[in-house]
Amino acid sequence: MRLPSPLPLLLSLLLLMATFAVAQQKREQSQPPPLAPFVSPEVHPDNTVAFRLRAPNAKEVQLVLEGAAEPQPMRKDDQDIWNVTTHPLPPDYYGYSFVSDGVHLIDPSNSQLTPNLLNTSSALHVPGPLSLPWELNDVPHGEIHHHFYKSAIAQDDRDYYVYTPPNYDPTAKQTYPVLYLLHGYSDDASGWTAVGHANVILDNLIAQHKAKPMIVVMPLGYGTMEFVRNNWDPWSHAQLRDQNFKLFTKALLTEVIPQVENEYRIAKDRNARAITGLSMGGSESLLTGLNNLDKFSWVGSFSSGGIPVEFEKDFPSLDAKANSQLHLLWIACGTEDPRIGVSRDLRQWLATMGVKHADIETPGMHTWMVWRRNLAEFATLLFR
Amino acid sequence: MRLPSPLPLLLSLLLLMATFAVAQQKREQSQPPPLAPFVSPEVHPDNTVAFRLRAPNAKEVQLVLEGAAEPQPMRKDDQDIWNVTTHPLPPDYYGYSFVSDGVHLIDPSNSQLTPNLLNTSSALHVPGPLSLPWELNDVPHGEIHHHFYKSAIAQDDRDYYVYTPPNYDPTAKQTYPVLYLLHGYSDDASGWTAVGHANVILDNLIAQHKAKPMIVVMPLGYGTMEFVRNNWDPWSHAQLRDQNFKLFTKALLTEVIPQVENEYRIAKDRNARAITGLSMGGSESLLTGLNNLDKFSWVGSFSSGGIPVEFEKDFPSLDAKANSQLHLLWIACGTEDPRIGVSRDLRQWLATMGVKHADIETPGMHTWMVWRRNLAEFATLLFR
Repeated sequence: MRLPSPLPLLLSLLLLMATFAVAQQKREQSQPPPLAPFVSPEVHPDNTVAFRLRAPNAKEVQLVLEGAAEPQPMRKDDQDIWNVTTHPLPPDYYGYSFVSDGVHLIDPSNSQLTPNLLNTSSALHVPGPLSLPWELNDVPHGEIHHHFYKSAIAQDDRDYYVYTPPNYDPTAKQTYPVLYLLHGYSDDASGWTAVGHANVILDNLIAQHKAKPMIVVMPLGYGTMEFVRNNWDPWSHAQLRDQNFKLFTKALLTEVIPQVENEYRIAKDRNARAITGLSMGGSESLLTGLNNLDKFSWVGSFSSGGIPVEFEKDFPSLDAKANSQLHLLWIACGTEDPRIGVSRDLRQWLATMGVKHADIETPGMHTWMVWRRNLAEFATLLFR
Repeated sequence: MRLPSPLPLLLSLLLLMATFAVAQQKREQSQPPPLAPFVSPEVHPDNTVAFRLRAPNAKEVQLVLEGAAEPQPMRKDDQDIWNVTTHPLPPDYYGYSFVSDGVHLIDPSNSQLTPNLLNTSSALHVPGPLSLPWELNDVPHGEIHHHFYKSAIAQDDRDYYVYTPPNYDPTAKQTYPVLYLLHGYSDDASGWTAVGHANVILDNLIAQHKAKPMIVVMPLGYGTMEFVRNNWDPWSHAQLRDQNFKLFTKALLTEVIPQVENEYRIAKDRNARAITGLSMGGSESLLTGLNNLDKFSWVGSFSSGGIPVEFEKDFPSLDAKANSQLHLLWIACGTEDPRIGVSRDLRQWLATMGVKHADIETPGMHTWMVWRRNLAEFATLLFR
């Protein structure tokens, strides 16, 4: 077979380009065309994702994507739409926002949000195989219960969420073990369900018999709401930070736990009570759990970093005797998280003290991608 | 007493202006000052509200405030912050957004949001007296339960919310009447709690013995999610619109109602079953309720407008015989809502047909301010 001559093809191409140039010129001379609708974010079959923002007069727009080390510059097209297409993204949920001339914006084209008290962002789902722990499967689903109460400890009106597993029957005699699951700094009490998809993860693990059916309680993680304010750094105020942690523990132990144990069929037994959390919530889990071993026997921490590093002051009575009380002490951190140093220091200190624990280092930064995987692993180990 | 000569005053003023001009010029020549933090929205003691958005290169920014007839222009200050201060606003919750060079944006300084499938906006609370139905009072609170299921009718994974009143006990013998409460077009199933504060309204009414303790079920209001898409008008597609309404009714009657009646202590009795909703949900309440009088005896509609106006086709078997079955048919609309005409036409047609109903016209537009008040009124009339 003879190959066709390239000449006619080249001529056709030139003609096409000339026609396009004339059409383009004509359009520029006439009225601006009506604003074309566009989609953002757009997940392509190869898992690259296009992000788009209309911002006619912005000088610089960037994409800030959870898990990406640097903001990604966007380019403006002739429709005043700023664009960037990512490299192929691993299937996951991602938070993202646009920075338009220095101002963080959610994506106006996307109704899916990542709620947060300081930095609302947009949510992107890059779907993956149903075997991923956070993908919605055709399995029985648990329920999420939203509770409201007036806290005498924190002196405010606050809320907490409770996950009950599939087929939970409040009238049955059976009791369930319970996991207290704590969010991070700037999240609200909805973080683990709205962003962490903890209910989906538990539904899947329970359906696969990888996790025991359990109740998961997700309280508001602040001892005082003064601690979560924009435009300043409460973490540098030692007194406020300590007060926040102390009041949080007190509200959990004396308000939330009695309420949920009264309402739900929860086993009132330290052997059936676990606590873990992410970032600030990881610190709270360690402080609350390890200082109350009469109440908790399963303790985890995901990417915690907020504890002062004088561990002997934080855990004054912790020593090797804890090994007979703790069924699990699971300390995890992403290797690219700046908190990895503190995590290693803590684990080193625990080793020095003779306290048995699991050293968990996984790839990743300070992101929900790490924490969803942490939960999917930690939950399988509980109540065995 | 002699009046002071105006000359020294004028000279002082001129000197001040010159000093200011020099200072201004000096600043413009030097490095830009660090970005000052600012608050938005800021509710002042007189209930005027300042809104602020940093947008250095925008040419035009407006405030779109729920309940305001027109967008309000904002002005840029020397910090590149666009400002507007409203006239005093009546205490309420308001949705709002900024339009920056034609693009709708939420307020990046405000974590409070009004979720919506097509138009996410920011939420403003102008606090008022505790006697307002939606203000959080120190009364017992009900709970909100979030359910997930696979719909065979809609062929998708969907959710619904259930409010249980304070002191609801799933193990008790007592049963409760139930209100099916439907959201509007572009809302999701969380609309009536996240934006409508239905749980707070019910908590308050029940504490004041103005409403009977009841269970409130808030389903997803679409028969097909094809119906809720951006950038086109599904309402003009008669076939899709009819399919949406039919499938919604079918999913409610054959999926949601059996599920909630199975799980909750709900009286399975048409005399204890009410249905109402706002806008599209008002139409759905009328179509579902009035065409299924064997199941519903309390029917409401807030600002509905989506029904085709050939009422005899929508309600083929409705006539004066319904009066013996209906305890309440409550049809409400704001007088400044463009749907007031259709609402009056419907009520006129009902009168012609001899169907008794309440004619409710209240001040207001097509806004949640109207619908929260509608619910607070309607709920007091139920199950008496």
